[in-house]
Amino acid sequence: MPRSYRGTAKDKFMPANLDVTHAVSLRSWVASSNGHPDFPIQNLPIGIVSFQSEGPRCGIAIGGSILDVRALLKNGLLDGDAAAFAEAASGSRLNGALALGSGPRIALRRRVSALLQEGAAERAAVESCIHEAESCAVLLPAAVGGYTDFYTGIHHATTVGKLFRPNNPLMPNYKWVPIAYHGRASSIRPSGTPVKRPKGQIKPPDSSSPVFESCRQLDYELELGIWIGEGNELGEPISAADAADHIGGYCLLNDWSARDIQAWEYQPLGPFLAKSFATTISPWIITPEALVPFRASQAPRPPDDPEPLPYLTDPVDIAHGAFDIELEVLIATPKMARAGQGYHRLSLSNARHMYWTPAQMVTHHTSNGCGLNPADLLGTGTISGPGKEEAGSLLETTQGGRAPIVLPSGETRMFLEDYDEVLMLARCHREGFASIGFGVCKSIILPSD
Amino acid sequence: MPRSYRGTAKDKFMPANLDVTHAVSLRSWVASSNGHPDFPIQNLPIGIVSFQSEGPRCGIAIGGSILDVRALLKNGLLDGDAAAFAEAASGSRLNGALALGSGPRIALRRRVSALLQEGAAERAAVESCIHEAESCAVLLPAAVGGYTDFYTGIHHATTVGKLFRPNNPLMPNYKWVPIAYHGRASSIRPSGTPVKRPKGQIKPPDSSSPVFESCRQLDYELELGIWIGEGNELGEPISAADAADHIGGYCLLNDWSARDIQAWEYQPLGPFLAKSFATTISPWIITPEALVPFRASQAPRPPDDPEPLPYLTDPVDIAHGAFDIELEVLIATPKMARAGQGYHRLSLSNARHMYWTPAQMVTHHTSNGCGLNPADLLGTGTISGPGKEEAGSLLETTQGGRAPIVLPSGETRMFLEDYDEVLMLARCHREGFASIGFGVCKSIILPSD
Repeated sequence: MPRSYRGTAKDKFMPANLDVTHAVSLRSWVASSNGHPDFPIQNLPIGIVSFQSEGPRCGIAIGGSILDVRALLKNGLLDGDAAAFAEAASGSRLNGALALGSGPRIALRRRVSALLQEGAAERAAVESCIHEAESCAVLLPAAVGGYTDFYTGIHHATTVGKLFRPNNPLMPNYKWVPIAYHGRASSIRPSGTPVKRPKGQIKPPDSSSPVFESCRQLDYELELGIWIGEGNELGEPISAADAADHIGGYCLLNDWSARDIQAWEYQPLGPFLAKSFATTISPWIITPEALVPFRASQAPRPPDDPEPLPYLTDPVDIAHGAFDIELEVLIATPKMARAGQGYHRLSLSNARHMYWTPAQMVTHHTSNGCGLNPADLLGTGTISGPGKEEAGSLLETTQGGRAPIVLPSGETRMFLEDYDEVLMLARCHREGFASIGFGVCKSIILPSD
Repeated sequence: MPRSYRGTAKDKFMPANLDVTHAVSLRSWVASSNGHPDFPIQNLPIGIVSFQSEGPRCGIAIGGSILDVRALLKNGLLDGDAAAFAEAASGSRLNGALALGSGPRIALRRRVSALLQEGAAERAAVESCIHEAESCAVLLPAAVGGYTDFYTGIHHATTVGKLFRPNNPLMPNYKWVPIAYHGRASSIRPSGTPVKRPKGQIKPPDSSSPVFESCRQLDYELELGIWIGEGNELGEPISAADAADHIGGYCLLNDWSARDIQAWEYQPLGPFLAKSFATTISPWIITPEALVPFRASQAPRPPDDPEPLPYLTDPVDIAHGAFDIELEVLIATPKMARAGQGYHRLSLSNARHMYWTPAQMVTHHTSNGCGLNPADLLGTGTISGPGKEEAGSLLETTQGGRAPIVLPSGETRMFLEDYDEVLMLARCHREGFASIGFGVCKSIILPSD
């Protein structure tokens, strides 16, 4: 364990599973990875990559390069559990590899970390398995069976609730139930896929009947995604103590939302077409191992908040089941691009604002016996902080479309316009550890047909 | 077209695609099929069957027997489009065959109808491909990617709404929007799979905090399921005129519901764990072709109801996009079984009570660009009639658990007890046509762990 780690009072419960792959002193012979904001050798995220002319297969990001895992296997550089992972990941989807659970994933991480370290004896052989990331496409890493979206951002739930119920913003169940709904798996796309502005039924406030038109209140939602690893059988719940073992990794998730469609359709069964036109994720699976240094204790609850029911209570999870991950949303418009203004920050939030941990989400989801499958995806819900600059959606930032934001170009926005690009980033920093990031989750809005 | 068909004023728009496979005069050399309540030669539903020792593959029900489609193919009894369907259906899932759309499915129907007719020259060869249904297991016919549950039963929506909002039972959007939510595909099981009573958070009315306990208000919901055939690309809506071409078939669907869990969790994002512990379907896919004689015009709307918006309006669909299908729910308890009392009818309803047609559901679902995939499943929502004896759930029949039903055994029920068995049936009758049925959709309740 790196000696420089100093726990704060809140975080003194340090995970026991730190190992040499987390050492801040580690450096790689892939020069671009040392100091890389997202993918230093301490990260090693897993994805499905289209390497130039050959078909999609498993890759690992290292700085500005990508390691071809199948090539490692073919060159005899993997064995045992690491080879088992690579074999399960030899197709164009990681579902089978995720199903293997943590053992093979950890074995691959350790082996790849050793192969990529400065001074590794296998460097020459590994170099032949490495491609420049710019020449590759990173695809959806798995076929998502079920997609569930939670609502764990209590500041988001409170701010949005206030727009509709000023005196009673949070439902009575909020602090007891990790609220969630089923989302649409078939609309999930990797970063870079444009989003077409949806049409739908919209009820103008001054009309007694709805119209079918293009959405005028298109919004983003800043979330993390949780990839399920090993699943559970129908009828066999996963306990809070076991839940972490069923998580295969994490990503960024933009839960695009059509607010005007949502307002008219969502009663009484919840959001449907307002969300199912597109969901964008960052395509690299950030492993639980890479995130070990950035686990944190659950944010302290206000004294009047209830204790979670026993089935949602695990001492290890409470002590370090939360995350300290910085989350950022940025926007670029064509006018800003023409003026060379780059991206403008819309929000800076943190995963610590989640009211429930990923383990609590998994446990609640399966508590009725519901079966999760490998590569099911759970969204956390919009992760907003308490401040206006920490809001994870424009609905919050513009107070429901009443207070416009002003961009560096002088343009204003209540909601997103055609050709706006939304970029989400997630970064982990902690003294004594190398910072890592999730890679980008971005998409541009295209007009309706 | 059978000469004996006499259209009523409402149903005078008769589908043009009746053919010889619908003739009431058709009889099969499979003796058990003639007069069979579900599977006469005019039905020919498609499923995935485990035939004795060999692996699961495509079968077609005919009376008390099942035809092995792969064996037909191997014996050279299929060619052209019919063979293409059989080849796509050669594995243990019908997803690939459903993706082919209607052409190959219709070709297979016509060929199998000819092979099974009395006097067919190929009888001896076909006989070697037939097994007794009692010696086979009928499995889930496809891997369900997305499962969406609609809410098209207006009498259900009204009765349930009255329990919560006596003066305003229907939401303002109900008569404009085919309301739906995403369900949980991983919990769908074929008829015969027991359902374990779920546990969940329940808020007792006299307590300020919830408990985590076994559901006490377990209910069924009587629905039809709609199998998607050929899908659509993300961003490419399906018009109302084209929607029927994207439907691969129909089944019965029991949307098991935990009312006490639902009451506490469903605000603000809709049902989640109250539904995701189990959904039971009848495993035979009843083809659109088999149902051609039983199409009907949409039930006339009350004069004050709005016309559907143009995107939901197709003249052919309005004229014969609805169904006249009798739907029945029955119950058996251990005490009734010991007394030899068989099943007791809980409800007799009809698919004519759906406020929206299957084509309108498909069109609405994709109107925002959402992509449907082959073997996605749409539930219609609970199909209740206006009368108490036509209610599709116990929530309605017992008025929210206030008016018990009395069974022949003298037992009473507000909701379902352990070891109750619920059986759903669907039958189509029309003068001048052979009656057909969907087969059974049944399951027994097992106690919580």
